[in-house]
Amino acid sequence: MTETQSPEDATGVGVASGVVGQVERDLRRVGANPDYWYPVALSSQVRRKAAYKAVFGGERIALYRGESGEVFALEDRCAHRQVPLSMGVVEGDTLRCCYHAWAYRGNGRISQIPYLPKGVGRPPRGVRAYPVREAYGMVFVFPGDPAKAAVTALPDLPAYHSPRHRTMTFSRTVRCHYSFLHENLLDMNHQFLHRGVVGKLRPELLGYDTGAAKVEARYLFTHAGGKRNAGAGILSGEGIGGATADVMTIRTEYPYQTLDLVPEKADHPAFSLWAAYVPVDAEQRSCHVFGLLMIEKPRLPGALHLAWPLIRRFTERVFAEDRTAVEAEQAAWDEQGEDRNHEVFPLILDVRAVLRANGVPLAAAAPCGTAACPAP
Amino acid sequence: MTETQSPEDATGVGVASGVVGQVERDLRRVGANPDYWYPVALSSQVRRKAAYKAVFGGERIALYRGESGEVFALEDRCAHRQVPLSMGVVEGDTLRCCYHAWAYRGNGRISQIPYLPKGVGRPPRGVRAYPVREAYGMVFVFPGDPAKAAVTALPDLPAYHSPRHRTMTFSRTVRCHYSFLHENLLDMNHQFLHRGVVGKLRPELLGYDTGAAKVEARYLFTHAGGKRNAGAGILSGEGIGGATADVMTIRTEYPYQTLDLVPEKADHPAFSLWAAYVPVDAEQRSCHVFGLLMIEKPRLPGALHLAWPLIRRFTERVFAEDRTAVEAEQAAWDEQGEDRNHEVFPLILDVRAVLRANGVPLAAAAPCGTAACPAP
Amino acid sequence: MTETQSPEDATGVGVASGVVGQVERDLRRVGANPDYWYPVALSSQVRRKAAYKAVFGGERIALYRGESGEVFALEDRCAHRQVPLSMGVVEGDTLRCCYHAWAYRGNGRISQIPYLPKGVGRPPRGVRAYPVREAYGMVFVFPGDPAKAAVTALPDLPAYHSPRHRTMTFSRTVRCHYSFLHENLLDMNHQFLHRGVVGKLRPELLGYDTGAAKVEARYLFTHAGGKRNAGAGILSGEGIGGATADVMTIRTEYPYQTLDLVPEKADHPAFSLWAAYVPVDAEQRSCHVFGLLMIEKPRLPGALHLAWPLIRRFTERVFAEDRTAVEAEQAAWDEQGEDRNHEVFPLILDVRAVLRANGVPLAAAAPCGTAACPAP
Repeated sequence: MTETQSPEDATGVGVASGVVGQVERDLRRVGANPDYWYPVALSSQVRRKAAYKAVFGGERIALYRGESGEVFALEDRCAHRQVPLSMGVVEGDTLRCCYHAWAYRGNGRISQIPYLPKGVGRPPRGVRAYPVREAYGMVFVFPGDPAKAAVTALPDLPAYHSPRHRTMTFSRTVRCHYSFLHENLLDMNHQFLHRGVVGKLRPELLGYDTGAAKVEARYLFTHAGGKRNAGAGILSGEGIGGATADVMTIRTEYPYQTLDLVPEKADHPAFSLWAAYVPVDAEQRSCHVFGLLMIEKPRLPGALHLAWPLIRRFTERVFAEDRTAVEAEQAAWDEQGEDRNHEVFPLILDVRAVLRANGVPLAAAAPCGTAACPAP
Repeated sequence: MTETQSPEDATGVGVASGVVGQVERDLRRVGANPDYWYPVALSSQVRRKAAYKAVFGGERIALYRGESGEVFALEDRCAHRQVPLSMGVVEGDTLRCCYHAWAYRGNGRISQIPYLPKGVGRPPRGVRAYPVREAYGMVFVFPGDPAKAAVTALPDLPAYHSPRHRTMTFSRTVRCHYSFLHENLLDMNHQFLHRGVVGKLRPELLGYDTGAAKVEARYLFTHAGGKRNAGAGILSGEGIGGATADVMTIRTEYPYQTLDLVPEKADHPAFSLWAAYVPVDAEQRSCHVFGLLMIEKPRLPGALHLAWPLIRRFTERVFAEDRTAVEAEQAAWDEQGEDRNHEVFPLILDVRAVLRANGVPLAAAAPCGTAACPAP
Repeated sequence: MTETQSPEDATGVGVASGVVGQVERDLRRVGANPDYWYPVALSSQVRRKAAYKAVFGGERIALYRGESGEVFALEDRCAHRQVPLSMGVVEGDTLRCCYHAWAYRGNGRISQIPYLPKGVGRPPRGVRAYPVREAYGMVFVFPGDPAKAAVTALPDLPAYHSPRHRTMTFSRTVRCHYSFLHENLLDMNHQFLHRGVVGKLRPELLGYDTGAAKVEARYLFTHAGGKRNAGAGILSGEGIGGATADVMTIRTEYPYQTLDLVPEKADHPAFSLWAAYVPVDAEQRSCHVFGLLMIEKPRLPGALHLAWPLIRRFTERVFAEDRTAVEAEQAAWDEQGEDRNHEVFPLILDVRAVLRANGVPLAAAAPCGTAACPAP
């Protein structure tokens, strides 16, 4: 048992944020730091010679895959009349707006205005372009300072490419601030929520560590009775209906989150989950979850294939229950206008400090009566 | 004919409110006084060992019926992370939050946090509990000062328990301020609205009385032709198709409303209606109507049983027409931002003064752009 | 080729508006000038002895057709309790409110309050009435200063009554400021939007003229290949599948817009379109399009009758594409809170100046949290 001291516990204001003696910013008003790579689409959603409407925290992004197969990401508004470029037409590696046919290169520069009168106007130079990378079956963009993109690593997921694993991909919008999802996964005392699916699980915290941009928690899971979903059993490598005492390691490594499950007598994970929570709206009250569940293939060939639908059903059900809870949390925050949580679990206080310290201030909410908050 | 003078008529500012020479508060911004017993659910909706989501003027209330059969009412937010307790699980006479399994007693105190680390935190003491009573097939709560609950009477409805009566129960949400419903019922000149159901009714005001917390109006109803709904005839004790001259007495006795109909040659009511209008949202622009229609059984055994569906259909239709009108009134108020009514009927001016004098100021509307008024 | 100089190009602030050196009002915050005749319903929608709910820029208008066949237009709120008069009942040439049966004459004066107590109250005199005219199968109202109605002409559309023409009528709500529609039609470089319907059309601007309240543009349309919709061919008088070089003349004559198409070898239009864009909501972020497409009958009797469904389908499809584009423009404006267009086409700069100069300031948006912008 190796518990580090919770920063918030010690000072009351969060050591990790480096701010002592000041009023803390409401965690639900802290924006996701844009200086990271965020997935904004599955690769399969961006088809060759087609555009796709993506988003990061209220910024609309037009993805398109050119004839060469390369994916580009532009600000999703034509410089001319602000019509979404994602409604446009791909020609070669350029994107042409659907309305008056202005064409853009992948770097955002205008390559053609078909009818531009001579001598008239200084037409705009183009629109913003985002650094793009494709990996793990997803399209990542870098919404922050483009100069930092080259020196910022994509997540490293060797299991994704390993022939000994197969990956299940998740893509779901959840109507809550991303921080609720970090807290949800790290606080395994919420197994009561999944009692109908996992039976009676007793999670015991073995220890946790907190760093400047990470929190890692280790739990021992003992099955204490109750009916257990078949998919749950398969996932922990025990066969259906068995009993286990698994070790689960959960990490927030800003801005991503991972979970590894090592079964009782094993020396490596039976599965690993990687997840990114990508803010959707400008106020970041909803986010899109991109998840990769990398499962080790059992020795029996074909067994995982047969079990695949059971695992899918189990994970979908667990995720649906989590979604209900975190969306209820966001709804309560919306009603109360502020975070009134009384958190008592030290590592959750830590992850809150980490998310606060590594995030960015959110732009002030648009005053109502303005266009961003129109009268109904 | 005993008309008292209308207070508003005399002074222009409403004697009943005790405020002379001041600008009156817009009646649609006056909140229902919480220091009364309000029904918030039908008893049948709160099943044994189950929780139920209720509300009073924007305050969410978790009702639950324990193993003992007793009903409890708690603030509908777990003290931990504000998730609704109405999503929880009943154990004995306690309610356990669905998320991290914190358990509450019926008085709102936390009885258990299953995983609480030693020495950590001063966990919150609990949540608000509301006084509860069950009567007339409904669950009443006391949303105001709990100290006043014990000395505040539930409505007294002897007919509900009388073997000579049978009660029809109504439960409907209406998108308007409760005051529109008081005015609707008291001003019987609105029979034109129901011309398709009741035919041509001529209401004549016999007299009215106004007190500090009540207005009572007495009308003589004469049927002046036109097709009349069967349910209407049965209700006035005349048999289908007959003609009548009934006396109808309508009372606002703050905060409830009642209506008694005494048929032409009878000496007691053929039916009595009791209604409560319970605000739903914080701005009280919608309310939930709980109604009890207590109908005297005719001499012929079984006749009421046979007529029951006709009466139900008739009352539903009348209520639907009233709803259309009062919701149109609320919609006009929403557009205009204030009450621009030109009321000419003295007793309606009185009931407005009574509702204003006995109500409470509504909390200021949340400024937009805040959580309570999120940008769409 | 007769190009006048674009006023906005010359001064940067719009000569047409008569305001030099001042900050221009955002065009999307300029209201339609109410001192014109605007259609608010099709004649067929206002049936004899029935009322109809219409609107102009947030002002609700109750139309009704009396027993005499005449149409009247009243403010759509009973003076008593603000319930819509469009829910009322027509009696002779009066309109009776559905709720308490107050009756109104076509001039807005109250003709009867059935139950008014003697000596009580100074009942209101009535409600606002609008000048009304019926023409071209539509009901026009004059929402501005009634004194100007008599001296303001209805549009003059002789082709509507000519036996050599048949008229197709359009009535559609579009969720955008009316100015986007003026710009859409005048800038024929947007044919790319319709490439799936009209094939590859090359529009060449022949010239344009700008006046104080009008802009007229003349284009030569050459068909440069691609599949062309049958309805498009029929409309340009060529038979299905032919090639053309038509001259199209498009005019904004405040507040209306027209389009004439003269086929290659003809000396008069094959069809003329007249359109009015009537603001719906108070902020004028949506408008209702009333359009009349007056098509010359071909020499072959019955040919137009057979082609009618093809023409209808073609025009509906073109209109649906335009709607998609202009609604995307409005949505971008709503997000950005201001007009960030970079317009490069001189005649579009002109029509913007004309619409700005002839429009009126919009009432300030209601602050949120008020009734006009209620918290959800």
